[in-house]
Amino acid sequence: MTGLDALFAPKGIAVVGASRDPGKLGATMARSLAGFGGHLALVNPRDDTMHPSVAAAADDGPVDLAIVCVPAAASAAVVAEAAAAGAGAAVVCGGGFAEAGGPGAGYQADLAAVVAGTRIRLLGPNTSGFLAPHAGVTASFVPGVAQVRPGRVAVVAASGGVNHVLAFLLTEAGHGLSLAVGLGNAVDVSAPDVLDHLAGDPGTTAVALHLESVADGPRLVAAVRRLSAQRPVVALVVGRHDIGAFAASHTGALATSWRATRAALAQAGAVVVDDERELVDAVGALSVTRARPARSAGVGVVTAQAGPGLLLLDDLRGRRIDVPELVPATRDALAALLPPLTFQANPVDTGRPGPELGRILRAVAADPGVDVLAAYALHEPDAVDLVAAAAEGRVADVPVVLGVGGAGDEVVRQRRALLAAGIAVAADPRGVAAATGALVADARARSRAAAPTAPAEVPYGIHGPHDEDRAKGLLDLLGVTTPARRACGSRAEAHAALAELGGPVAVKVLDAAVLHKTETGGVHLGVRTAAELDTALDALPAGRCLVESMAPAGVDLVLGARRDPVFGPIVLLGIGGTTAEALADVAIRLAPLTPAEAADMPDDLAGRALLDGWRGGPVLDAPALGRVVAALGELLVANPGLAEIEINPLRVTAAGPVALDAVVIPRETSDAQPRP
Amino acid sequence: MTGLDALFAPKGIAVVGASRDPGKLGATMARSLAGFGGHLALVNPRDDTMHPSVAAAADDGPVDLAIVCVPAAASAAVVAEAAAAGAGAAVVCGGGFAEAGGPGAGYQADLAAVVAGTRIRLLGPNTSGFLAPHAGVTASFVPGVAQVRPGRVAVVAASGGVNHVLAFLLTEAGHGLSLAVGLGNAVDVSAPDVLDHLAGDPGTTAVALHLESVADGPRLVAAVRRLSAQRPVVALVVGRHDIGAFAASHTGALATSWRATRAALAQAGAVVVDDERELVDAVGALSVTRARPARSAGVGVVTAQAGPGLLLLDDLRGRRIDVPELVPATRDALAALLPPLTFQANPVDTGRPGPELGRILRAVAADPGVDVLAAYALHEPDAVDLVAAAAEGRVADVPVVLGVGGAGDEVVRQRRALLAAGIAVAADPRGVAAATGALVADARARSRAAAPTAPAEVPYGIHGPHDEDRAKGLLDLLGVTTPARRACGSRAEAHAALAELGGPVAVKVLDAAVLHKTETGGVHLGVRTAAELDTALDALPAGRCLVESMAPAGVDLVLGARRDPVFGPIVLLGIGGTTAEALADVAIRLAPLTPAEAADMPDDLAGRALLDGWRGGPVLDAPALGRVVAALGELLVANPGLAEIEINPLRVTAAGPVALDAVVIPRETSDAQPRP
Repeated sequence: MTGLDALFAPKGIAVVGASRDPGKLGATMARSLAGFGGHLALVNPRDDTMHPSVAAAADDGPVDLAIVCVPAAASAAVVAEAAAAGAGAAVVCGGGFAEAGGPGAGYQADLAAVVAGTRIRLLGPNTSGFLAPHAGVTASFVPGVAQVRPGRVAVVAASGGVNHVLAFLLTEAGHGLSLAVGLGNAVDVSAPDVLDHLAGDPGTTAVALHLESVADGPRLVAAVRRLSAQRPVVALVVGRHDIGAFAASHTGALATSWRATRAALAQAGAVVVDDERELVDAVGALSVTRARPARSAGVGVVTAQAGPGLLLLDDLRGRRIDVPELVPATRDALAALLPPLTFQANPVDTGRPGPELGRILRAVAADPGVDVLAAYALHEPDAVDLVAAAAEGRVADVPVVLGVGGAGDEVVRQRRALLAAGIAVAADPRGVAAATGALVADARARSRAAAPTAPAEVPYGIHGPHDEDRAKGLLDLLGVTTPARRACGSRAEAHAALAELGGPVAVKVLDAAVLHKTETGGVHLGVRTAAELDTALDALPAGRCLVESMAPAGVDLVLGARRDPVFGPIVLLGIGGTTAEALADVAIRLAPLTPAEAADMPDDLAGRALLDGWRGGPVLDAPALGRVVAALGELLVANPGLAEIEINPLRVTAAGPVALDAVVIPRETSDAQPRP
Repeated sequence: MTGLDALFAPKGIAVVGASRDPGKLGATMARSLAGFGGHLALVNPRDDTMHPSVAAAADDGPVDLAIVCVPAAASAAVVAEAAAAGAGAAVVCGGGFAEAGGPGAGYQADLAAVVAGTRIRLLGPNTSGFLAPHAGVTASFVPGVAQVRPGRVAVVAASGGVNHVLAFLLTEAGHGLSLAVGLGNAVDVSAPDVLDHLAGDPGTTAVALHLESVADGPRLVAAVRRLSAQRPVVALVVGRHDIGAFAASHTGALATSWRATRAALAQAGAVVVDDERELVDAVGALSVTRARPARSAGVGVVTAQAGPGLLLLDDLRGRRIDVPELVPATRDALAALLPPLTFQANPVDTGRPGPELGRILRAVAADPGVDVLAAYALHEPDAVDLVAAAAEGRVADVPVVLGVGGAGDEVVRQRRALLAAGIAVAADPRGVAAATGALVADARARSRAAAPTAPAEVPYGIHGPHDEDRAKGLLDLLGVTTPARRACGSRAEAHAALAELGGPVAVKVLDAAVLHKTETGGVHLGVRTAAELDTALDALPAGRCLVESMAPAGVDLVLGARRDPVFGPIVLLGIGGTTAEALADVAIRLAPLTPAEAADMPDDLAGRALLDGWRGGPVLDAPALGRVVAALGELLVANPGLAEIEINPLRVTAAGPVALDAVVIPRETSDAQPRP
């Protein structure tokens, strides 16, 4: 019995604040629970047809769970009463707590105090409850939840409303649910608790996770990592755009960084999606089938109608999914099955579908480059039995996503039969693409090695200000390439440096206090002669300077490592320049991370093509970049004294990445010491 | 009677190649047409229970339409026979024509010859037909079309398969269809024909258009312009990504530019969407309601559950939709209806929904800043009757989109009741956002003035090579700001120019044959002194040079006007630099266009924020930019001798846009003369 069994698998339930007035929450809740097979007790001291207290209800039978439908001000006392009566869990549905401000914050603090004092597990407040259809527990005041069937998908939603949105969308897509929870204000039970509960639930085959804000980033990441090692997790994070004021009114919490949250979840093994429709497509597919681990799974596309196949292919390309050309043996097999002149290269266009569809699917699935099969067909029972064809087309370890176009009950039945046979289904090409994308992303997550552990030793101590020379010295220790340089304290030293390095050189002011060297005229490039050097030195402020060999041309990146307030150490990679900055085109990962993980970061960038020899430019050495990123992340993790380090620019050259400038920002706290 | 009434509203139909073998197309087609109320004749000379010929069928009753289900090689003869027997239209469903290559191209040419010789209107070949549910004509071999109800949405799809995909998705979303056509190879009847037919059809209230390639851009644009003046058109263009090889196999045509096609359709008044789901959301909403013309319609958001409301708001923000703060009078009205501390600024969170929902909707819809109302609620019949609330919430000219979360038949009935009452519906927040986005885009399209006519006079003659000085002279004539410049034939003239203009100046090689001045060392910037000028001139190749005042700092754009092979004169605007180029972040419009239309182009750019005072930079003067763009477009339209003109960079400065360099490319054909 895990800590949440009293909540999600109770033997007995008391509804406190039950009512016979059908307009009241307590009445609706009691009605929703009518199907519960265990002991169900209605509690209302002002209604003599009901139990006067939880304790009285507990005399009649077990009460593990109290569902509290009383005003906010009275809730804490009811929860305390339930705990005293032996209940292990409570749900507080109503609002009027921290999200409402005013006295609500106090009511919420009262709840927290009861939890701390009694160890009762509390879901809510400010949630519309949860559904555990296998146990007949529909602790929700939305009557439509009776439509939700028992099944294998679990929903963990920040919001009670979104929990219902997802439960209904999954139901309409033909899926049953094992558990659906809305967390509300999460004064006790939070997403990591529920995720850990699900990690131990063999009846759940995939989990949909909806997040609004994250209270404890590392705890969430650890829970997702544990769960995704067991079964797929698909995550939707709200807050891509500016919704801060409204979000704060909803949850009473400040918005967490959307980008950092998505990056952290993906790194922990979740499939991250963009909207609730894709969430349903993705978790629905992953609840019935899963691809083998693959860094870049190949997708075979089969379509019975060319037009929908084009929509599907276009969508897959937009997701940067690999649709590899089929090998000659596969094409020979297809040539024997298909009329001449149909398109057989991948996508495979079957022309008018017929009974050979199953063999066509099988031939494509058996291609060595195909890890996932994505197919679309209109429901044409006279021409082909899609359920039989999909079954015939299955090849071990190659999941199938089949879009079935049509309307009406027969089509709904057919989609359900496919699901029951372990075939992911969709109603349209976009749904096929979204489900396929989820299978590919899951395969990629599975292909990654276990997360690196934090470095055990302290490689460097970060103390005091770092001018560019000192910052680059640190990069040298990390194995990051920097241009040859000489820190010079006098004009004579500068001339000696030019003579030694040879021109052209860059001449820069060397002062940790100057933050914007270029903007303040502190950088002179392309200095070749002694005369040019003198001109440059004349223009610099008095003091030390750096004389440095010029790097070859290339594409400039910005690489940083800093501390996210929610998730802790992170690394950020973007393309240099204001355009990329204005587009917020940045890849984020939690640190520490392996060089191999880091080497994938450029693939997140919209401007990735710039690093692939764009217009004759250099091609990125991704493994070398990965080593630089991982080293920066490790440095940050191992040095509590380091607040932030940024290499800007990190130039991609034909000879590998070169750090042209770096800024090191120590933490200014008194405990900024390397940890023991 | 328009030219397509024989096709879409026949009094009699002959199915040629009808069969009693249920596996044959002809049998399926005959079965699909069993509900047709007019004269239905089956033709098969080898089956003595059927008519031996179309002529024989025509003896029994009217035959306006022949549906041809015979092999490709025999189709042209059957169409000719039908025309001879008096049929005004024919559908050729099968494949094996141009899309299949080989002899197919000849069979298609045969069909074209019959069309040319007989004036019969031909749909296809290579299409799965069409549906005209009001007339009981389901000329399709997909049996599920029996599920499609008569209604008000029309579908015009490039592909027969996509026609079915859309018909089924619309049916599942609760919409009926007035007409659904798959064009196939479009040897005769093409999208503009069907769009013109629909412009005269009062039974159609919105049109979904799916395009793969465009044969005649101006004709398509004209048809969309005519139709969208009558009723909304929503367009989906396939081919955002590289799908060329497969697309060619499907249609036998090369891919049309996805970007140019979308831009042309939007400019012609269509609402352009990204995928088939959004197409269904958009056309479904626009078939029941429409917003008043508004350049930037304001959206009021009401949600009965905060979590789904956050998803909705996030999505609307991603669409750059205006969600304005409500005026004090509205907030006062809401304060009287809602408990304190709920969020009432817009979005409006109703908290637990109740019977006051209708008054809340009405208060928000009546706000002067609100043009469209977007709302979401779970189906909770005990708490609120959503149909009644939506009716109560209606304010004249303010359309309502209501998302209803739930599953099961009762919810489906409720969504249909809302549609019947003129309320757009959706099943999830994303659907609400997509429908709202369509209403806003339609309002914007309606707010635009009529398209400009092509300029009647020839303003300039373009002949011969244009060096930078001559190209800028042309810009000067157009009223485009350029820096002060002097074309110099000698060193003395260059020194005089520097003295006259004052430093700093740019010194550039002046030779129309040098295409990449900067890359070949032909540009020297920041020249201030006579000595610096001499150094610069020493480095330039011999010949003429341009001495030009330096422009102030700013953000560089690239503006071009060129001839698209499908759509003719177009203008293109992007942000300068390789990052924007790699991201293909470009806005396109057909020329000619008005300065006001052109001034909206930056809003299409992902990097729009760069032009809004990014990091202390200049703020774009959009009307001034619009005048430059419109002038370039007009120049191109009025000058057949001009192939292309590009201003790169066009710098956005605090004083307005300044053209820093320009390239003029004359057409090299012998007829490159200004038109009379």
